[in-house]
Amino acid sequence: MASTTEIGAAFAGATVVPHYRTLQINATRINATIEAACTWGNTPDGGMNRLAANEDDKRVRAWFIEETAKCGCTHKVDEMGNIFAIRPGENNTLPPIGIGSHLDTQPTGGKYDGILGVVSGMEVLRTIHENDITTYAPLAIVNWTNEEGARFPPAMLCSGVWGGAFTTEYAHSRSDASGITLRDELEAIGYLGHTPCSYEANPLSAHFEVHIEQGPILDAAESAAAVVQGVQSIRWYKVNVTGREAHTGTTPMDRRSDALLGAAEMIVATNDIVTKDSGLAARGGRATIAVINSLPQSINTIAGKLELGLDIRAPSDADVATIEQLCRRRFATISEKHGLTLNVDNFWVSPALSFDPRMVDCVRHSAQEIGCTMELVSGAGHDSVYTARKVPTAMIFVRCRDGVSHNPAEYSRPEE
Amino acid sequence: MASTTEIGAAFAGATVVPHYRTLQINATRINATIEAACTWGNTPDGGMNRLAANEDDKRVRAWFIEETAKCGCTHKVDEMGNIFAIRPGENNTLPPIGIGSHLDTQPTGGKYDGILGVVSGMEVLRTIHENDITTYAPLAIVNWTNEEGARFPPAMLCSGVWGGAFTTEYAHSRSDASGITLRDELEAIGYLGHTPCSYEANPLSAHFEVHIEQGPILDAAESAAAVVQGVQSIRWYKVNVTGREAHTGTTPMDRRSDALLGAAEMIVATNDIVTKDSGLAARGGRATIAVINSLPQSINTIAGKLELGLDIRAPSDADVATIEQLCRRRFATISEKHGLTLNVDNFWVSPALSFDPRMVDCVRHSAQEIGCTMELVSGAGHDSVYTARKVPTAMIFVRCRDGVSHNPAEYSRPEE
Repeated sequence: MASTTEIGAAFAGATVVPHYRTLQINATRINATIEAACTWGNTPDGGMNRLAANEDDKRVRAWFIEETAKCGCTHKVDEMGNIFAIRPGENNTLPPIGIGSHLDTQPTGGKYDGILGVVSGMEVLRTIHENDITTYAPLAIVNWTNEEGARFPPAMLCSGVWGGAFTTEYAHSRSDASGITLRDELEAIGYLGHTPCSYEANPLSAHFEVHIEQGPILDAAESAAAVVQGVQSIRWYKVNVTGREAHTGTTPMDRRSDALLGAAEMIVATNDIVTKDSGLAARGGRATIAVINSLPQSINTIAGKLELGLDIRAPSDADVATIEQLCRRRFATISEKHGLTLNVDNFWVSPALSFDPRMVDCVRHSAQEIGCTMELVSGAGHDSVYTARKVPTAMIFVRCRDGVSHNPAEYSRPEE
Repeated sequence: MASTTEIGAAFAGATVVPHYRTLQINATRINATIEAACTWGNTPDGGMNRLAANEDDKRVRAWFIEETAKCGCTHKVDEMGNIFAIRPGENNTLPPIGIGSHLDTQPTGGKYDGILGVVSGMEVLRTIHENDITTYAPLAIVNWTNEEGARFPPAMLCSGVWGGAFTTEYAHSRSDASGITLRDELEAIGYLGHTPCSYEANPLSAHFEVHIEQGPILDAAESAAAVVQGVQSIRWYKVNVTGREAHTGTTPMDRRSDALLGAAEMIVATNDIVTKDSGLAARGGRATIAVINSLPQSINTIAGKLELGLDIRAPSDADVATIEQLCRRRFATISEKHGLTLNVDNFWVSPALSFDPRMVDCVRHSAQEIGCTMELVSGAGHDSVYTARKVPTAMIFVRCRDGVSHNPAEYSRPEE
């Protein structure tokens, strides 16, 4: 965590230059920049498929460096491929104030998730630059690598290394479905940098992140933006179920150990646990199974081996623990009923998080000036979860149509 | 269908040579031959993985030709790679009496399913040959290509072409998961023969098939073998479900179109339909989903696209139709509840079949001589389903341990 003195010093510059308040970003330009950032990896349905460290990610990184260089930025690329585009300030002994998010997407992603956050930082940079302002502390626009974790699980991997949640070695060794490691792919696209990936070696003074809400609350309330108070608790699990392969045509229904039938009952049970318990539902508990792999995948052989990916979330750690317990209990009962063996591995934990009160207050004042008074807890994890471990962090949510994200139909109105 | 005169003529030879009845097969040799046939494609768990027209299938085919040649057989390979090992009789103007099954296996298959049928034919051939007997009609031991359909769906593809159920062009064009066609693979392994694949061009007089029961009835009754009266009705379906990809962490539980949750409810409903209706259950109705493919397979993106493989069976066509109707109705209700779009494609139909009464009677007499009086309807499809369209056909079921098949643990005792 940066010391209070450091933060105070970094912010001091802003408060003594009142004309900062009159600066306006250029809404047309920000939307054009989003389109430009989506030149690589866009899909015919209007969405994005730009998995971390692939060829399209390489191209958008080159564009990001070229564009930010036009505003006087120099660049640091760290060992995880995180890019820091740094514009000097008056006092360059201070760590930069960061504005960051990610340019990678889900395989069926949209044009806003992550991209809007980086582009917003670029717009702030351009507005400051064209008004010929020198900030007190330097400014860093950050592109964090592999936030989605869609190619190299888990999510927020490289902000996680910077924030001390994972070691560089662990993150380098994460591999995609074809067995290629993140380190090898970063090297292949030319973004295996030399700057050590850590707050201590390459500090920021603070981290701001603009992100689409990815939920329907702002859209329903017809509010353009919201202050984010924190991020909900998240845990991920790998669930393995083993039954017995047998012929579908000859094996009586009551003599089967059908792993897919068991898994199907677990999926239904998982949904029931959070929708049929009025307390958990009201407190925002969520549980989803979205990954399933079944073997041997032959229409006339009963499935013998199943793997599921389970995602549990709630604003409180206690509710996540309760949902986990209920899932474990129901899964065990289902397995026993069908003669299946079960293994549940909780491979990732991200506890509930409250952002720095002073930073949240800073966002709150700005939001109120444009008439936005809503405050939310984020349902999704973000790079800010890990920067918050080291530096004062805050987030701003922008309304997105129908609350849709991780989908090509993801959309935020230009006026927002 | 072969004419009665032809069949009468083909059988005539047997009935006038009474000492045939005293012939005994060699149980030790038949078991050694099964082991030899499993030299290629066996797995460390004691099972088999020999998909149709792969390199292991090529090797076992060469062995089959070499071994049957030792008993005076010549060979015909047809356009679908079916191999007819023909030992001449007294009257070679008659079509051969066929004994056949298949040497391909499931990816998680055992050493008996199909293999036992071909090896039993080889043992009959060897016994006749070593006793220096010339049968009246010629004898053909047949290895049918791709019976399992595990690599090139549907099942029983090449006996199906011979029996007129599919065209050669259709069967040649069937492709595996990597897009390679059966025709190309047959050519690659050297078994794309020149004999036209049809009963008309390359007839048999009759078809016998020995097969493991693949069910637990004989094992429970401690009976070594059973007469097979016919084969139950089978239909296969591809079920496609489309929902909406969305973020697992931000999308409220009541605002989702979760295709995997819908599919899970369909899997549970399919099982309920045949297990909770006492009439269907008592009459042997079976319905199984053993194939599932979900997209985009990201732990924090709700599944948007699902494909299921549904297998419905019952001794009667009417019960299969009823199960199909109930599934369609339940699937539609589930889809509506979750806002999913649904498509159900019934891509294969194999109606209930009764084998030729005279052939069944012939097997019945032999079975009774060794004290086996059980009679069964086959739950699985077999090559005999399609030979029965053209020539008198009968099957013999052999007990298998615990009724297990399509599993490495598949086992029949040597004494059976």
